[in-house]
Amino acid sequence: MKVDGKQFRTIWRKPGDECVVQLIDQRFLPHDFVIEEVRGADQMARAIREMHVRGAGLIGASAGYGMYLAVLEAARQKSFDEQTAAAAAQLRATRPTAVNLSWAIDRQLQAIAGGQTAEEKIALASRTADLIADEDAEHCRRIGQHGLALIQQIARSKPNKKLNVLTHCNAGWLAFVDYGSATAPIYAGHEKGLPLHVWVTETRPRNQGSKLTAWELGQQGVSHTVVADSAAGHLMQRGEVDLVIVGSDRTTHTGDVANKIGTYLEALAAKANDIPFYVALPSSSIDWKMRDGKDIPIEERGAEEVKNADGWHDGQHTVVRIAPDQSAAANYGFDVTPRNLVTGLITERGVCEPNEKSIRALFPERPNGGRRFGELSICC
Amino acid sequence: MKVDGKQFRTIWRKPGDECVVQLIDQRFLPHDFVIEEVRGADQMARAIREMHVRGAGLIGASAGYGMYLAVLEAARQKSFDEQTAAAAAQLRATRPTAVNLSWAIDRQLQAIAGGQTAEEKIALASRTADLIADEDAEHCRRIGQHGLALIQQIARSKPNKKLNVLTHCNAGWLAFVDYGSATAPIYAGHEKGLPLHVWVTETRPRNQGSKLTAWELGQQGVSHTVVADSAAGHLMQRGEVDLVIVGSDRTTHTGDVANKIGTYLEALAAKANDIPFYVALPSSSIDWKMRDGKDIPIEERGAEEVKNADGWHDGQHTVVRIAPDQSAAANYGFDVTPRNLVTGLITERGVCEPNEKSIRALFPERPNGGRRFGELSICC
Repeated sequence: MKVDGKQFRTIWRKPGDECVVQLIDQRFLPHDFVIEEVRGADQMARAIREMHVRGAGLIGASAGYGMYLAVLEAARQKSFDEQTAAAAAQLRATRPTAVNLSWAIDRQLQAIAGGQTAEEKIALASRTADLIADEDAEHCRRIGQHGLALIQQIARSKPNKKLNVLTHCNAGWLAFVDYGSATAPIYAGHEKGLPLHVWVTETRPRNQGSKLTAWELGQQGVSHTVVADSAAGHLMQRGEVDLVIVGSDRTTHTGDVANKIGTYLEALAAKANDIPFYVALPSSSIDWKMRDGKDIPIEERGAEEVKNADGWHDGQHTVVRIAPDQSAAANYGFDVTPRNLVTGLITERGVCEPNEKSIRALFPERPNGGRRFGELSICC
Repeated sequence: MKVDGKQFRTIWRKPGDECVVQLIDQRFLPHDFVIEEVRGADQMARAIREMHVRGAGLIGASAGYGMYLAVLEAARQKSFDEQTAAAAAQLRATRPTAVNLSWAIDRQLQAIAGGQTAEEKIALASRTADLIADEDAEHCRRIGQHGLALIQQIARSKPNKKLNVLTHCNAGWLAFVDYGSATAPIYAGHEKGLPLHVWVTETRPRNQGSKLTAWELGQQGVSHTVVADSAAGHLMQRGEVDLVIVGSDRTTHTGDVANKIGTYLEALAAKANDIPFYVALPSSSIDWKMRDGKDIPIEERGAEEVKNADGWHDGQHTVVRIAPDQSAAANYGFDVTPRNLVTGLITERGVCEPNEKSIRALFPERPNGGRRFGELSICC
């Protein structure tokens, strides 16, 4: 997508240097646009853990490139397998909720196992990392097309009127490699000239809504308004929301949706006010093993994120204290929206109901409880 | 309640100076405890409008003292009635949602009308201002006793286990003259030795939860944890909340509850998870004219509050920018929780169901659509 009119992805290889991966360090947006050079699996693990990159798809793509960098490093050592396994374990431990992380690492491990020599393994890891990134972008593009049909349907029911979409956190292109999941239909609709307006919930405590989603919508010229997370219900009650589209960090193959903390409250409000509530996700975010959303591990991050707010003051990145030093705080990163509150899932293969039968009908090749990575081509 | 072990109210007359009212300027909590001296109706209007004081009960008490200061000033002028009416209009325009504001001003106007001379009017305004404040404190104390019975009932159902209460924003003693509405049962239970723990939602954008409620709970030694507003649903889903108690800025006599933005989402989550959801309010917050909560005017405050966060950095009160400068933002101060989501109202006369019949059964003397201020004594 565009940054100051120039096309970008969130992560890419540095041209001319096979040992370096470049990524947008998102911690400084919207104020500063910083590009980080990543030179090893260790540095990539830190970038994921400390949220230079975040978002289900981008975590997966970053882990894919992290494994490629790990293989490059391991090829220089004697103990290739141990080195690679250690890097995989380190990357896997960075974030607990997004299923894309393990998915990408396992896919890389399976790919690498197919090579005999170090050169072959490097070539396979390199190719797989690019494939994971390219597939992520392509899947998001297709999610945009399927979601666009939904938006056009609503547009037909209120011709020449503003269409209000509410989204939470950042399931934008910054959370993937390109396009985004929840934002892809919005960008597709904006391109078609639909009169879209987006309610952006700020998404405390890290403000991915006000810092990232608002920034990227602004860069593409999409009309939007930032609101406090608490305002979502009020907006829905007052008829100011036509459609909710959020992303997902992990969705069970039975349709329960883990996403940024607060999504569950928005889903309850959408249900209470008869507003369609869609979850946009590539199939890499579907957990084909887990049956019950209650079993999804919920990341608890440091209390300081809740006791502080960080932003810009006099051009400096500044952290301010917004609670008593003595008070305890808890910081749950995600919550689980049960399938009965979800209208539908927008995937790269189309829209389906949030239940096992409908999901499996779109992805019939997925074995029960298993994963398939053997394709090595962009699957649809 | 206590501040560093010393007893305080939120607003009081300055001893030895009848022209000065003192109040806690809450904008600097929890970092600085600042006492402001207010010397006229104009200054009191600013204190209410700019939220040096806030909260339904305290807005009422402040307006009561503001009218007293207005009468003092008017007595020195020729045009007493015009002066008083202008001050009343100025105070009335400061905040739109809390019904206590108009309630206190009307009560003062009625009282003042009973005096013949300037001295009589000053005496009546002075007495009425004190009465409004004393009644507010006494009503909150009684709310505490009635709410305590509810907490004790829950405590009996889970003996020797932690009792988790969730509250939103600040309906604590800082929002009233003393005790608070939502916090009064908590303080009463804490005094009885019940093993209470309070989830404090931070309440963006002004963070009255993390800045005020957390501070006052800490000062009284009540165990508490600050969470993002978005975490309320997750906590309820996971069985971490036994009871929700919130305050109200205005409740219709039919039981619809206007309270800080986000209350509606918490009520939806409480309903979905079978958790009792109580609203604690003195009858001064009941609107005896309005039938439908949808008609309650919802204050929209400046967008900058949403685009910024303010707190402390290096000991300095500092504002940081947390959204793109170019992005629009909207700042709805309150939402309306429909009566069907409310378990009960905790008033100074006891607990009732959120419907007209039950409310009127507790307050049979209230004429339909009218108000009665003739008592001039602490009513129960």
